[in-house]
Amino acid sequence: MGAPVRILGIDPGSRHTGWGVIDSSGHKSQYVAHGCLSVGDGELPARLLQILQGLAAVIAEFGPQEIALEETFVNRANPQSALVLGQARGAAICAVAGAGLPLAEYAAAQVKMAIVGNGRADKAQVQHMVKVLLNLQAKLGADASDALAVALTHAHVRGTRIRAGMALSKSWG
Amino acid sequence: MGAPVRILGIDPGSRHTGWGVIDSSGHKSQYVAHGCLSVGDGELPARLLQILQGLAAVIAEFGPQEIALEETFVNRANPQSALVLGQARGAAICAVAGAGLPLAEYAAAQVKMAIVGNGRADKAQVQHMVKVLLNLQAKLGADASDALAVALTHAHVRGTRIRAGMALSKSWG
Repeated sequence: MGAPVRILGIDPGSRHTGWGVIDSSGHKSQYVAHGCLSVGDGELPARLLQILQGLAAVIAEFGPQEIALEETFVNRANPQSALVLGQARGAAICAVAGAGLPLAEYAAAQVKMAIVGNGRADKAQVQHMVKVLLNLQAKLGADASDALAVALTHAHVRGTRIRAGMALSKSWG
Repeated sequence: MGAPVRILGIDPGSRHTGWGVIDSSGHKSQYVAHGCLSVGDGELPARLLQILQGLAAVIAEFGPQEIALEETFVNRANPQSALVLGQARGAAICAVAGAGLPLAEYAAAQVKMAIVGNGRADKAQVQHMVKVLLNLQAKLGADASDALAVALTHAHVRGTRIRAGMALSKSWG
């Protein structure tokens, strides 16, 4: 299957941005690292800059070749929270774009389908399967688990695309 | 009234981000420059990076001391557009935070009240008054006009606060 590709998964949030790094060789993925950037209660500009610089530091440290992001769930009843989440996503995406890396996006249902085989799986099921797939024993926070899940989803989708001879383009997601 | 303060006003948008620079000495403000960053139809990461880097270049060129941002109007009927606007705002705010400058935010109604004296003034009235207040003859695009309007609003509010002996803090807006 050639050299493994290093994938960074990101689950952006206004308070906590989870991240997870895996190496993927076709069907098999190996855990590299995970973490969570918690930006506290400071002013908005400082918090967004922490997301931007924190993810830039993760990218510099682990050198991923491709990045996968979970699409933000937009709550119809709360456009204000969509705005706040959008701001955090904007900072995270700037970190990716600043590093010149390709970005793929996946809806939560796609992630659940890829990891659990059920688009309506709950958080605990996703968390369990992430640990099984990556052979992890340690406790995994929800944000980091979601980030590793979207990285695994991307590994799965890109593997399928490569085997099918399809382009790896912006339409990954 | 002491040395003039240079203020950059920003009206962030996912396609067009207007900006305007003024020098304010108490009651009087002087026009310095304005422009609009249009980010085209490329992929989202590239567009957000253009906003971040474009505003960083404006800040580097004109050296504002304070920055004012128009609060994004959140349409209750369209949380998806709130998310998209939030992403553009996130990129814009990262440019401000990266430069270490203080940021004040003003709602559209505050801007209209400060510029026209009527919180429900229409765009054309705001545009007209911006040109009158800054003694501009040239045609002014809507995005740049909104950006100059929020800069003028900030000049007005900070002047009032200073005269009243109030703190210039994050609660400017």
